[in-house]
Amino acid sequence: MTGFHLNLSLMTPGHFRHAWRLPHADPWAYLDISHFQRLARVAEKARIDAVFLGDGPALRGEIEEAPGTGLDPLVLLGALAAITTDLGVVITSSTTYNSPYNLARRFQALDHVTRGRAAVNIVTTGTPAAAANFGLAEHPDKETRYRRAHEFLDVVTRLWDGWEPGAIVADKATGRYADLDRIHRIDHEGEFFSVAGPLPVPAGPQGRPVLVQAGGSAGGLALAGDFADVVFTVAQTRGKAVAFRDDIRARAAAAGRNPDHVKISLGVVVLVAATEAEARRRERELYDTLPIERLTVALTRNLGLPDGLFGPDDPISPADLPEGIPDGAFSAGFSVSTRELIAEGPRTPREVIQRGAGGSGHRLLVGSAEQVADDLQAWFEAGTADGFTIMPADTSVDFENFARLVVPILQERGLFQRDYADPTLRGRYELPWPARTSEPATV
Amino acid sequence: MTGFHLNLSLMTPGHFRHAWRLPHADPWAYLDISHFQRLARVAEKARIDAVFLGDGPALRGEIEEAPGTGLDPLVLLGALAAITTDLGVVITSSTTYNSPYNLARRFQALDHVTRGRAAVNIVTTGTPAAAANFGLAEHPDKETRYRRAHEFLDVVTRLWDGWEPGAIVADKATGRYADLDRIHRIDHEGEFFSVAGPLPVPAGPQGRPVLVQAGGSAGGLALAGDFADVVFTVAQTRGKAVAFRDDIRARAAAAGRNPDHVKISLGVVVLVAATEAEARRRERELYDTLPIERLTVALTRNLGLPDGLFGPDDPISPADLPEGIPDGAFSAGFSVSTRELIAEGPRTPREVIQRGAGGSGHRLLVGSAEQVADDLQAWFEAGTADGFTIMPADTSVDFENFARLVVPILQERGLFQRDYADPTLRGRYELPWPARTSEPATV
Repeated sequence: MTGFHLNLSLMTPGHFRHAWRLPHADPWAYLDISHFQRLARVAEKARIDAVFLGDGPALRGEIEEAPGTGLDPLVLLGALAAITTDLGVVITSSTTYNSPYNLARRFQALDHVTRGRAAVNIVTTGTPAAAANFGLAEHPDKETRYRRAHEFLDVVTRLWDGWEPGAIVADKATGRYADLDRIHRIDHEGEFFSVAGPLPVPAGPQGRPVLVQAGGSAGGLALAGDFADVVFTVAQTRGKAVAFRDDIRARAAAAGRNPDHVKISLGVVVLVAATEAEARRRERELYDTLPIERLTVALTRNLGLPDGLFGPDDPISPADLPEGIPDGAFSAGFSVSTRELIAEGPRTPREVIQRGAGGSGHRLLVGSAEQVADDLQAWFEAGTADGFTIMPADTSVDFENFARLVVPILQERGLFQRDYADPTLRGRYELPWPARTSEPATV
Repeated sequence: MTGFHLNLSLMTPGHFRHAWRLPHADPWAYLDISHFQRLARVAEKARIDAVFLGDGPALRGEIEEAPGTGLDPLVLLGALAAITTDLGVVITSSTTYNSPYNLARRFQALDHVTRGRAAVNIVTTGTPAAAANFGLAEHPDKETRYRRAHEFLDVVTRLWDGWEPGAIVADKATGRYADLDRIHRIDHEGEFFSVAGPLPVPAGPQGRPVLVQAGGSAGGLALAGDFADVVFTVAQTRGKAVAFRDDIRARAAAAGRNPDHVKISLGVVVLVAATEAEARRRERELYDTLPIERLTVALTRNLGLPDGLFGPDDPISPADLPEGIPDGAFSAGFSVSTRELIAEGPRTPREVIQRGAGGSGHRLLVGSAEQVADDLQAWFEAGTADGFTIMPADTSVDFENFARLVVPILQERGLFQRDYADPTLRGRYELPWPARTSEPATV
């Protein structure tokens, strides 16, 4: 097919985190399995490739004003995969705060249990609060986190490849169950990890679960080039998105990979209604939920500007910005994206925050179903992405609106699948079956 | 009710691990989600309290002759909970090879997602091979593992208690979502862990997931007395079982707890058929799958005897046994249980292995449905247990045979529930709602 892939984010109450304040919203929905079950069924009916959920292992102070981090995503999305048959699940996991053996084993099990619908979204965790939950005196710096992530994925992928096809013999007559010569330890000894292996059971239907990578820093880009099947990214402008995709493809090629085997999934916050007027009315309603003063402080800090210099309606021009990305920035990807936006001309914090979907930083796309479909088509045809991760502005409304209003238009245009063509997520993303990476010692 | 609780083990191919060799067996069933889905539905229809699965994070050499460790149990049993509505899930997890924050968070999420059916079976992992998968030069000794487990459970239970009821305010008018004064850090600093907390979300329906403990060593018993809601244990004789239950109850009382709030679930391997003759025929068939020479060596080593001194049919008498439990013994609980059996009179390794269900060490109970029901009733009335964890000899046959043939007899006698009286596992086990353990600092 010549169209694109679509993932849908389950983030609740929405990528406008303050959407819980709207009259129709259930403020407890982010803890309610029946809410998520309903969304999963809607997504599967629309032939969405996968549902997605961001995560970080800590409570953040923003809980005072909105739900933030929610239920453990492996547990939650595993439960959703169990009640669907084709929907993929993209589960965010931290390489900084997990051990590679446990993570490899869990996702391998999920691949078996879902019959090939498991994907892990690898992050290194940007939340400093997480460190204190795992015995670290301070959050490791980004360079260290990515060095660890690189070794982590090297270990995980080799563990996934540890059993050759045919390792289970199951010869009832002789009583021989497995051929130990076909089950390989990895005997890894590195800077961060020492892991013998093998995993207890052979690979699942995908060989390896799909590996998604989501960081835009130098370390994240290197990781994406070496390991990622899918790169989840952020862009406010088409130019930034095209350049990013070209860069990732070049990195994959430099690592000896086929660049077509790295798919770019671009995040976009969608607010969609039956008419543009209704979408614009809902947009204003969502803007009214935002604590604009606090978000202005957060934004200007992320840009390296001193507190109080810019109020919500004071234009920031490119010349106001310090060189480079400040050390304390929440995310390199979001900083670059916001700077690209300001580079187009002066913007007030309010404009940046609204266009960044209430502070999420992702591009906000507002309109009728037809307008949203037009926009996605134009961005796709401009070479910005191989697919989109749709992030509902208000999940209780926009998740279903996207699935029921926008998807049929995309299908009509031949841009999105009408049926699940392959039972595995890897197959649907048109990714290759992973090659065995090594031939290590037997058990 | 005056009856007992029943859990059913999903171990596949069965607690006779070589049952995969039987003509009817599917040797790949232990990797097949549809096999487990079928069992879960059978269990729920029979009103079984929970399904259970043992685990350890390593491949063991025995894979050459039989499936051993299988799919990650959190992932597998989570998927089974998602397709059932009342069935509990008892999921084995290692305190030696997990971090308390992640484990607490996952089981808390599972409690939300299952609406109060989550239980964690805490083990310290007796498999030396696991250490090499987690960067340890050698497997920590039992005393160290239990000291860690004690601190681990202290951290986990305090994390679970971190959010007071009412912490979520969700005041749409003021925009205040949570009351930070009611969300508590734990700021734990101990020998093994430093954990700040809190967890990202409030407690699920059970307050705390049910805590099951399964080790019979001194450290395990201390842990059970201090923390366990349910103790899963092994006994070959009624005398050993009664003494064990009395001991655990006394330990709970000494720790200031109500002894009725610690339930004993006694493991028993069940081989059951419509008639005794058919059960005996199947018993002989299962014995023929056993590699008796190798199992004899494993048994005698566990008893501290030199290799080769006793063949499969040489009687071992109590006087042959060295004092105490040898350092290398697989499990203190199983060693004690086997010694009690030999104390009744000389036993050959073959007898011990057969009576210990092919080397699992648990008591083997063979018979017609009526005979199995009689036996469980007699053991229950003798004060050996508050319930049983039924471990099918050949899971592809005995799981359903137990649920369909034995359970109705137990229900008829008023010994087992006809309906799920409470939506939560904690309620059905007649356990109290956990008290908050502490009042630590706010966020």
